[in-house]
Amino acid sequence: MEVTQVLHMNKGEGETSYAKNSIVQMKIISVATSIIEEAVVECLEKKLTAESMGIADLGCSSGPNTLMVISEIIDIVYGRTNKTGNPLPELRIYLNDLPGNDFNNIFISLPEFYKKLKINKNIAQEGCFISAMPGSFYGRLFPKKSLHFVHSSSSLHWLSQVPRALDSSILKPLNKGKIYISKSSLSSVHDAYLSQFKRDFSLFLKCRSKEIVVGGHLVLSFMGRVSADPSSEESCMQWELLAQALMSMVLEGLVEEEKVDSFNAPYYAPSAEEVRSTIEEEDSFTINRLEAFEIDWDGGAPSNNNFQNKINKIEKYNLSRGQQVAKTIRAVVESMLEIHFGREIMDELFKRYAELVDDYFSTTRAKYIDLVISLTKKD
Amino acid sequence: MEVTQVLHMNKGEGETSYAKNSIVQMKIISVATSIIEEAVVECLEKKLTAESMGIADLGCSSGPNTLMVISEIIDIVYGRTNKTGNPLPELRIYLNDLPGNDFNNIFISLPEFYKKLKINKNIAQEGCFISAMPGSFYGRLFPKKSLHFVHSSSSLHWLSQVPRALDSSILKPLNKGKIYISKSSLSSVHDAYLSQFKRDFSLFLKCRSKEIVVGGHLVLSFMGRVSADPSSEESCMQWELLAQALMSMVLEGLVEEEKVDSFNAPYYAPSAEEVRSTIEEEDSFTINRLEAFEIDWDGGAPSNNNFQNKINKIEKYNLSRGQQVAKTIRAVVESMLEIHFGREIMDELFKRYAELVDDYFSTTRAKYIDLVISLTKKD
Repeated sequence: MEVTQVLHMNKGEGETSYAKNSIVQMKIISVATSIIEEAVVECLEKKLTAESMGIADLGCSSGPNTLMVISEIIDIVYGRTNKTGNPLPELRIYLNDLPGNDFNNIFISLPEFYKKLKINKNIAQEGCFISAMPGSFYGRLFPKKSLHFVHSSSSLHWLSQVPRALDSSILKPLNKGKIYISKSSLSSVHDAYLSQFKRDFSLFLKCRSKEIVVGGHLVLSFMGRVSADPSSEESCMQWELLAQALMSMVLEGLVEEEKVDSFNAPYYAPSAEEVRSTIEEEDSFTINRLEAFEIDWDGGAPSNNNFQNKINKIEKYNLSRGQQVAKTIRAVVESMLEIHFGREIMDELFKRYAELVDDYFSTTRAKYIDLVISLTKKD
Repeated sequence: MEVTQVLHMNKGEGETSYAKNSIVQMKIISVATSIIEEAVVECLEKKLTAESMGIADLGCSSGPNTLMVISEIIDIVYGRTNKTGNPLPELRIYLNDLPGNDFNNIFISLPEFYKKLKINKNIAQEGCFISAMPGSFYGRLFPKKSLHFVHSSSSLHWLSQVPRALDSSILKPLNKGKIYISKSSLSSVHDAYLSQFKRDFSLFLKCRSKEIVVGGHLVLSFMGRVSADPSSEESCMQWELLAQALMSMVLEGLVEEEKVDSFNAPYYAPSAEEVRSTIEEEDSFTINRLEAFEIDWDGGAPSNNNFQNKINKIEKYNLSRGQQVAKTIRAVVESMLEIHFGREIMDELFKRYAELVDDYFSTTRAKYIDLVISLTKKD
């Protein structure tokens, strides 16, 4: 499976689209807001950005979250320069995601976005340039020393590939009946995932270290765990239940068992310690913060955010919590699953998944661990 | 009509898509190749670009032509640096079009494009960065002094808006039964179009003059005319026949006459003299070349280009020349027409149009005039 070619959030604005099913990712962004603010303000205080400020959002996806992050960053820069009386730098904003991302959907809302910048903040068209840079962040994306602040949310848990040792075309299935690390997985399964994560994350940092100026900032947030155990529920349970849903379909002859055995998610939820040691070994960045936040599977209680409230209101009366979670997960993983298992089983798969999630909710406060890391580029 | 929101080439890869119907535009690009080469080589010789070279294609559209232009420019830079022994500058390439353009379709072919750059020219990922900048080129698009070479083909004949005086909501119809300047149009119709063109083109040059470094180059090609007469066939006939097709549908009650009276194309084909005087009045650029080329309505004889030959072969046996021209025009103007006249009449309209074009071909060698202008940014 070529991850670069098959991984993209569900496109468009329909019922199963990512645009309509990304409340959890919005929650994750809002959790990191104060850390983003701290990093952006430090950038501005170092006067690295007097004339022009390069800002990138890596794994920007497509939907309300995309421009929300950008809007927040602009707000911070605007507020800070207003306060200090410095002129606003020319803002060069780069949206990055894989080439299969629905960029058209973002672009169509840009004219309205620019209009609001002008009305609310008097930022003219020549003050803010929003462009798109499609490509994998496990490779170079931007010119040398062109960026001051880089953000990435809910993306770095995706690996560049399924770990080689798990690729069924090379060996016989190592992780039968599972699609990610599980309680019953051999330790070689975890080793394969960890080593792929370390290789990918190091490469990510190395590429960014060429693109970010000395003193520039990088704020990352992605799925991880606090437990040292790689098979802990906080990092695996969403995949475990998806494997259960698939296996229940195997039992009824709706899915071939070999299909499940040969699928492994190109995903890894590292421990805070694994993240720390990888950053230190790669050695381009200083760690300012490395924090863990609990995020409820369904995004938790409604926040003050209007969009989220609106969505919650619509869904609350029609869908169970399991169904809501199933929609969120579907919007993210369907592009990969349908290539491997076929489009025709998707409705049934996520129906079963929703039921399993509802059962799980009946006994557990299901939560993810979101790691937030704030880094500064070293001299 | 908000041109920014309704003008885009037909999306996707289907039968009526721009991607499948852009041979004429390819011909127009190939006509300008030697002028593009001359300008790029001059850029390189001035050593403006030793480290990093900013290249933009404005109105890049979506289809085989988009990356063909970029590929040609890279070839020229690569060939020249190879010859002189200078290292290849870091290439920052920006694709621009209106936000409604099908950028997704371009992005999906980028991985293959990068792979070929690596195999054929050993240009690594950190040597060439292709990004997209959605927005109207009648406004600022890029940071100050960030570009060295800017190209635009088959785009600047599109105005930012229908000339105000022709807007039927303000005055009663000035140009009844027509959709562009016609032999029977009042001189006020031409005046309105010319003044809109001059305003738009000046603004375009002013914006680019901020973005292009001193000594940087701008190569533009767009529809125009050699005749001083703004109603000459070489600049109007494609619209004249489209108006005839619409009026034949009015006669049969298929289209309301008011609809035709209130539609005016946001398009202008200027004379070489009008272009020259606008550039001189705006005063940011020196004119190196201003040339006119005849382009057959159906793109002329097959060139050596493989893609074009392939398309020609497929079409030659199935479609009349009129039908081919109708498909080319439809891929460009349908987005605008269907908003005004309704999607349901499009098939019939272009069927009638094809017949009128075939009649016209039987008596005339139908041709466009393509103006190619090469400019250098003044001190």
